[in-house]
Amino acid sequence: MNLKIAALAGDGIGPEVILQAKKALYAIGVVFDHEFVFEDALIGSIAIEKTGNPLPEQTLNLCLNTDAVLFGAVDDTVSSTKLRPIQGLLNLRQALGLYANIRPVKPYADLLDLSPLKRKIIENTDFIIFREISGGSYFSEKKSNETGTFASDLCEYSEEEIIRISHLAFRTAQKRNKKLTLVDKANILETSRLWRKVVTELAEGYPDVILEFLLADAAAMQIIINPKQFDVILTENLFGDILSDEASVITGAIGLLPSASLGSSSALFEPVHGSFPEGKNKNIANPIASILSAAMLLEHFGLHAESLKVFEAVQKAIELNVVTADLNPYSKFGTNEVGDFIANYI
Amino acid sequence: MNLKIAALAGDGIGPEVILQAKKALYAIGVVFDHEFVFEDALIGSIAIEKTGNPLPEQTLNLCLNTDAVLFGAVDDTVSSTKLRPIQGLLNLRQALGLYANIRPVKPYADLLDLSPLKRKIIENTDFIIFREISGGSYFSEKKSNETGTFASDLCEYSEEEIIRISHLAFRTAQKRNKKLTLVDKANILETSRLWRKVVTELAEGYPDVILEFLLADAAAMQIIINPKQFDVILTENLFGDILSDEASVITGAIGLLPSASLGSSSALFEPVHGSFPEGKNKNIANPIASILSAAMLLEHFGLHAESLKVFEAVQKAIELNVVTADLNPYSKFGTNEVGDFIANYI
Ligand SMILES: CC(C)[C@H](C(=O)O)[C@@H](O)C(=O)O
Ligand SMILES: CC(C)[C@H](C(=O)O)[C@@H](O)C(=O)O
Repeated sequence: MNLKIAALAGDGIGPEVILQAKKALYAIGVVFDHEFVFEDALIGSIAIEKTGNPLPEQTLNLCLNTDAVLFGAVDDTVSSTKLRPIQGLLNLRQALGLYANIRPVKPYADLLDLSPLKRKIIENTDFIIFREISGGSYFSEKKSNETGTFASDLCEYSEEEIIRISHLAFRTAQKRNKKLTLVDKANILETSRLWRKVVTELAEGYPDVILEFLLADAAAMQIIINPKQFDVILTENLFGDILSDEASVITGAIGLLPSASLGSSSALFEPVHGSFPEGKNKNIANPIASILSAAMLLEHFGLHAESLKVFEAVQKAIELNVVTADLNPYSKFGTNEVGDFIANYI
Repeated sequence: MNLKIAALAGDGIGPEVILQAKKALYAIGVVFDHEFVFEDALIGSIAIEKTGNPLPEQTLNLCLNTDAVLFGAVDDTVSSTKLRPIQGLLNLRQALGLYANIRPVKPYADLLDLSPLKRKIIENTDFIIFREISGGSYFSEKKSNETGTFASDLCEYSEEEIIRISHLAFRTAQKRNKKLTLVDKANILETSRLWRKVVTELAEGYPDVILEFLLADAAAMQIIINPKQFDVILTENLFGDILSDEASVITGAIGLLPSASLGSSSALFEPVHGSFPEGKNKNIANPIASILSAAMLLEHFGLHAESLKVFEAVQKAIELNVVTADLNPYSKFGTNEVGDFIANYI
C-alpha cells in the first residue's frame, strides 16, 4: 500500500515523539512492503512564529490532499492574544471535517500499578470513548461586551452532527461488547435532550447493541468507581474533553495513550498527552502514545497485521522495561532509545 | 439561639435521612440550649404529585421566611414532561439567590480503604469546591426547533455573578491553606476568559492567597492523580457539577458528603448523594451526609462548638462501626440506628 502522510509535529515534545512514530512506520513499511511518504508541515505556536498563522494555508492544503495526518501537539496555554496556537488544531478539525475523536482506555497488564486507582478497580477495563469534536460550544457563537462585564458561549448541535458520530459509535459497539453509553446532561441541557432523542432513534437500527444513558456528573463518578462497566462511551465535545482526560488516569500513564480523529474523508492520529513544553528537547518524552497513534493509523487503513505488530513491539518494550522515566523512575532510556527499540523490534 | 429551619425532605431516601439530621439537631438544641423549629414542606416529585408544582408557592414562601433550609433530595431522572422534579431545586436555588455550592472533600482516616484510589494518593487530601450554581448554562436561554433537528444552550455569565462567589472562595482560602485554583476552559470559552479576568482582578485584594488556573480537562485528571495539591477550587456551574461529583469518589463513600448552598440572605444544606429511589424505605440509606449537612448549618450560624460536636459523634459512629452497609458490608445497622446512635452520643 502507498500512503501519503502529513506529519504535523507542532510544539513542545511534538517533534520528538512524531519522529519515533515515523521510525515505527518506516519499519512497518520495510517489513510489510508498504510505502509511507511523509510530508512535514507547520502547526501551532511554531507556525505562528514562522508564518503568523497557527494553521498556515500550506499546511491545510497538504492535509486536505493527503491520506492521513500524524499529529504531535500544540501549545495549549491560554494567551490573551487572538492568535492562539490551539486555534491551529481547532481549525484543522473543522476544515478536515473531523468529527469523531476516538480514545481507547485499556490499561496494560504489566503496568497496572502505575494507576492511582486500585488494581481491582481497573483490571480488565476496556472501553472506547467517542467524543464529538466538530461542534458544540467549541465552535458556536461567543460574545463578550467591551467593558468586560459580560460574556456568553453558545452550544449548538444539529441532528446531522449527532447522527454521523453515533453511527460510528454504534458500529464499533457491534464489534465489541455491544453496549453504548450516551453521556449527557439531559436533565438540564436542551442539546443533551436532542442527543438522547437522535441516538434513541438510531438505536433501532442496531438492535444487538444495548443503549444506556448516563448523566455527565454520574459518569464522572462511574468512570473512577467502576470503569469495567463501559464498552463504548459516546458524548459531545466539552463533556468528552473533560471525561476522556479523566479516563486517561485509569492507566496511570498518559504517555501511553493514542487517539484517532475521523471525518468522512480525513483522519488524524494524535497522542493524548499535550505539548509538555517543560519536557522539550530533553529526550524524556514517552514516544509510545505517538507510536500507538501510528498503529491506529495502520488499523484505519485495514492494515491489521501491521497494526498488531506495532502493538506487539510496544508490549515488548514495556515487558523488557525499555521505557521512559514516566513509566519507570529508574529507567535509563530516553525518547530516542525507546523509539529505536520499537522500530528495531518491528 | 433560635433558628427556624425549613425541612424539604423531597424524594427517594430524602425523608429518611432528613429525619436523622433533625434528630441530631434536636439533640444539639437540648445540650447547648438552642431552639430549632422545623417546618416541613414539599419539593420535587412528591410536590408535583400533591400540588402539580415541583416548587409549590407555599414551600418557596416558607424558605424565603426562614433562617435556613435543610434539604433532602429530588428525583433527578430525565423525564420528557416539562414538569421535572429537579426544577424544584433549580427554581429554589434561583429564588433564594443561592449562588455558591460548597463541598468539602476530606477522606476519613478510618475509611481510607473504601476509596477506589490508592491510600497514598488520597491520604491528607483536604480541599473545598466552590461551585457557582445560579448562572451559566443551567439558567441561560435554551432553544430547540419543532422538527427536533436542532438545539442550543446558551451559557452566560456576568461580572457580578463571578464576583460574589469569588469573594467567598478567597475568604475561605485565607482561613485555610491560602491557595485558590480557578478551573475553567479559558482556551476555548469566552465565559471562562471572563472568569479569569474577574478573578485575577479580585486577587489583588487577597495578596496572601496564591491564585492558580487550571483547565477543566486537566483538572479532571489532577483531582484523581494528585488531589492533595488543592486547597480551594472555584468554578462555574456545569464544570462544578461534573468535577464535584468526580471529587466525591476520593472518599469512596458518597453517603458521607455534605454540602452547603449559600446566598446573600439564604442558606440551604443538602447531602451530596441524590434521591436513590432504589433505597427508599429500606432503612439502608446512610444518614451521615445529611447529619453533616446539619453540622454545616450550625457552623454557618457561628455555632462552632455545636458543629464540632456533630462531627465528633459522626467520627465516633465510624470508629465504632455503627454505620450503614455502604461503609461496612457486614453492618447490621440501618439508617435509623445510625441516626439514633449519633443523636444519643450528642
Ligand atoms: C488543545 C485543546 C483545544 C484540546 C481540546 O480542548 O479539545 C485538547 O484538550 C484535546 O482534548 O484535544
Ligand atoms: C439534580 C441536579 C439538577 C443537580 C445539578 O445538576 O446541579 C445535581 O446534580 C447537583 O449537583 O446538585
